[in-house]
Amino acid sequence: MATLIFPTNHSPVEDAEAIRKAVEGWGTDEKSIITILGHRNTYQRQQIRKAYEELYQEDLVKRLEKEISGDFERAVYRWILEPADRDAVLAHVVIKEGKNYHVIAEIATVLSPEELLAVRRAYLHRYKHSLEEDVAAITSGHLRQLLVGLVTSYRYVGEEINARLAQSEAEILHEAIKEKKGSQEEVIRVLTTRSKTQLVATFNRYREAHGASISKKLVDETSDEFQKALYTAIRCFNDHTKYYEKVVRNAIKKTGTDEDALTRVIVSRAEKDMREIKELYYKRNSVHLEQAVAKDISGDYKNFLLALLGKED
Amino acid sequence: MATLIFPTNHSPVEDAEAIRKAVEGWGTDEKSIITILGHRNTYQRQQIRKAYEELYQEDLVKRLEKEISGDFERAVYRWILEPADRDAVLAHVVIKEGKNYHVIAEIATVLSPEELLAVRRAYLHRYKHSLEEDVAAITSGHLRQLLVGLVTSYRYVGEEINARLAQSEAEILHEAIKEKKGSQEEVIRVLTTRSKTQLVATFNRYREAHGASISKKLVDETSDEFQKALYTAIRCFNDHTKYYEKVVRNAIKKTGTDEDALTRVIVSRAEKDMREIKELYYKRNSVHLEQAVAKDISGDYKNFLLALLGKED
Repeated sequence: MATLIFPTNHSPVEDAEAIRKAVEGWGTDEKSIITILGHRNTYQRQQIRKAYEELYQEDLVKRLEKEISGDFERAVYRWILEPADRDAVLAHVVIKEGKNYHVIAEIATVLSPEELLAVRRAYLHRYKHSLEEDVAAITSGHLRQLLVGLVTSYRYVGEEINARLAQSEAEILHEAIKEKKGSQEEVIRVLTTRSKTQLVATFNRYREAHGASISKKLVDETSDEFQKALYTAIRCFNDHTKYYEKVVRNAIKKTGTDEDALTRVIVSRAEKDMREIKELYYKRNSVHLEQAVAKDISGDYKNFLLALLGKED
Repeated sequence: MATLIFPTNHSPVEDAEAIRKAVEGWGTDEKSIITILGHRNTYQRQQIRKAYEELYQEDLVKRLEKEISGDFERAVYRWILEPADRDAVLAHVVIKEGKNYHVIAEIATVLSPEELLAVRRAYLHRYKHSLEEDVAAITSGHLRQLLVGLVTSYRYVGEEINARLAQSEAEILHEAIKEKKGSQEEVIRVLTTRSKTQLVATFNRYREAHGASISKKLVDETSDEFQKALYTAIRCFNDHTKYYEKVVRNAIKKTGTDEDALTRVIVSRAEKDMREIKELYYKRNSVHLEQAVAKDISGDYKNFLLALLGKED
């Protein structure tokens, strides 16, 4: 469930006017921006953008970029976009920076086939290149094969499982991953083409046969980009709530918060399953996520993320 | 332009009734089937299927499969389907038989990104697997990479061309294809991800730099499935009308017609650019395609294909 708190009735025009007031003149009223944008759902935010554009002949997103800065700006920018557009931007950051390829694996595996397609459309629209084109151009070898396969997939969605296939493909994964022999190409084939239901069945067979979950058998996260992307994909297929909890935990645990990761999870999941991620976080750490976040970061950035996490004003 | 001749007004119910009469009782009135179905466009055919189902609580496609047979049946069956569904069936035939992989390359490269997506949806709906899943499961190595890349592509559609990229990627193709060194993976990357406009620019640069078109430099069609699929993809990107003319020419030229290829081209293109293919055929062979077809095949199959080629009754 979502953590975002938003009014059932709001006036896009009034919101646009209030934001205009907050950004006009000397200084910026960040608190108003947080109070409004931190409490509007995707549809409402798009309505505000439209109303703002109509009222002031100016792109709200561009205006905000000028008025605010740093982690707060990045968080607001990612948040204000529609989910597919946001993911296109997140993928593009990876491509521009040539690191954190596992974020692309995360996007491609957590989304439904139709949602992933929407991201590809948004990416094409923004950058005049296809997502797979840009991913392929900056990667090579197995990393390329895995990421291109993940982002281009359009998987079967349904309950049909082939149990024999789950068994034989669990062995393919075992050979290649645990024993470090066998074909990585077959691992890539399985992970990039099978339905999520089928993959979970395969992972279950793996655990039964080998006494530990496949992600436990995988190398740790200090390994190379291919291994990291592989690990991310498998964890996201298996249980993306658990995966996100760990991303948040690691982001906070680090000396020097990993703001990009923290922001990414909160803006992406606040309207989806952030409540489950929070509950899992509490179970695992005996500290409420809000407390941990409040301790770790500060200022407008902190207030904004806390708003998305469900803090009442 | 299309070769199909169809009435602007038709009654789906009357058509369904006439077909019912043609298949009922002893024997089948193939002539009526040809007269009706051979002169209805995609939308009209779907209306007839609907009307038939409503009137007789029976699937028209299944009934026709029982009543007619051989190449005629296969042609009618492929024709009656919606284009995306037909291509899903054609791809599935390749997968079932484990040969003619270049047909998948043809489908994936001739269609627009949205059309290709419709084929993937139709395939999922029919077979409860994704197209790429089934392609990947029966292929390996470069053939797998190429075909999976082609069928999963969602290319940029637009006029923007990067001239420098065209030049550098023409060299990548040259190294790998003509010199047989360099990386096939890079060839696959270029062909599976770049926009069609960009690819044509790249092929043009290739021709300018090396004095012959890239397809001329490619191995002939007696080579392995990967080379054949590669050759098909490049020819289809370059000029699919020319490509189809050659498929038809080869299908007829063979001792023992290649009915599958002949049927595939005619049913796929009769509502699109079959007229241009016919004109090209005449230019190249100094014989009208209808004459060549009439000489090469016979019976109901012949009459049906001739109807699709625009022969007036």
